[in-house]
Amino acid sequence: MFAEAELTDDGFLNGRLRIAQPKGGYRAAMDPVLLAAAVPAKPGESVLELGCGAGVASLCLGARVAGLRLTGLELQAAYAALARRNADRNGLSFEVIEGDLQAVPAALRAQSFDHVIANPPYYPAGGGTAAADPGRETALREATPLAVWMAAGLRRLRPGGWLTVIQSADRLPDLIGALGPGAGSLTLLPIAARAGRPAGRIILRARKGGRAPFRLLAPLILHEGAGHLADGDDHTAAARAILRDGAAIQL
Amino acid sequence: MFAEAELTDDGFLNGRLRIAQPKGGYRAAMDPVLLAAAVPAKPGESVLELGCGAGVASLCLGARVAGLRLTGLELQAAYAALARRNADRNGLSFEVIEGDLQAVPAALRAQSFDHVIANPPYYPAGGGTAAADPGRETALREATPLAVWMAAGLRRLRPGGWLTVIQSADRLPDLIGALGPGAGSLTLLPIAARAGRPAGRIILRARKGGRAPFRLLAPLILHEGAGHLADGDDHTAAARAILRDGAAIQL
Repeated sequence: MFAEAELTDDGFLNGRLRIAQPKGGYRAAMDPVLLAAAVPAKPGESVLELGCGAGVASLCLGARVAGLRLTGLELQAAYAALARRNADRNGLSFEVIEGDLQAVPAALRAQSFDHVIANPPYYPAGGGTAAADPGRETALREATPLAVWMAAGLRRLRPGGWLTVIQSADRLPDLIGALGPGAGSLTLLPIAARAGRPAGRIILRARKGGRAPFRLLAPLILHEGAGHLADGDDHTAAARAILRDGAAIQL
Repeated sequence: MFAEAELTDDGFLNGRLRIAQPKGGYRAAMDPVLLAAAVPAKPGESVLELGCGAGVASLCLGARVAGLRLTGLELQAAYAALARRNADRNGLSFEVIEGDLQAVPAALRAQSFDHVIANPPYYPAGGGTAAADPGRETALREATPLAVWMAAGLRRLRPGGWLTVIQSADRLPDLIGALGPGAGSLTLLPIAARAGRPAGRIILRARKGGRAPFRLLAPLILHEGAGHLADGDDHTAAARAILRDGAAIQL
């Protein structure tokens, strides 16, 4: 468990969500909000988040779409507890199961979902400098191969269910390679800081058993202009709608 | 061989290149010009084109970069002969070898190149309606798996050499899956008809033995505006520079 003094209190979706996060641990920024915006969930559907951390993605999704059945799987007990607390605080129902996606708990194995979402670690195993905080390191550095994340997600989907994942753009080949033949109808959304720049993030959506052709969408641009000029909010209208107003991303 | 009456005479790069193409067969449009523009060739380097058809990509590249040693491999004898004739007509040196990339001729196997380029068939084997013209069908429908194209290309590259490929955007997962571990430093350029639209084509560049991270670039947009409004040339300035002025695409 985190002590109160270890936590900050952060607003998401223009303050509609209040989220406690560890000062020195893994801290959500924009990515789980973008992930939540891209999930094509309809009221009443079920959603499983793999590696939910403090719960930002699932709670943003719950704030946008009414009546979802939200479930999270989280390896780290302290983050699982934090996610439950964040859900309660925001009046959202979110069942958080502590466990490893390499050995999915029996309670989860008995269920299937309309949607699986994930924001897996961006940095490959080995190489690079480890984060000093072990919780942060677990969230950022791949210990479980991406292919295990994707396979675990696909197994928990009903036929025709949707897998939505956000990743660092440089992992695109790994992410595509990690998807088995059960994942079809792939749609890829590049996300770039500014127009004309390479993508920094990607959102990949797949449908279990889908057979539609792969689609590579126009990028979502986050900031106006060629560089950071002002201290103010230079988000594009599209980014502002997603990050502040909780709008959906139509893929 | 094609009879004269079967051929048309087409201008590329604002008429700098005159290319004979079969009326009813495979006819190059914009894609080989875009492919040629994306090849990072420097004067004096060697280039092998797999499946060169009538030679548009290699000849566009030869028109842009001086003193290249250009070689083409072409399965269909009539297209190989046409490519030689198109090269002569435009005063460019282009050695065209007739042969199958599934059994690369010994003359080619003895060589390595600074660049390999290809515009492989876009339609997967099986399914769809076959083109009435067999030469066109061979150019458009995949008979040789993409992985064989990519492996044949990589084998002919010197260490550090560059592979540049244009494909239909919906084949991106296949194309990435077709690249073996020898292809690194991948850069992907989406090409879209108009801003905000999904990509129709992709150019993928890889370096033999490269270790740089994958990069997903901002899309190249071909046409201005949201739809076709005028009968005139509505190409963007970037597209016009490539297609008419023979400018390079900086990846």
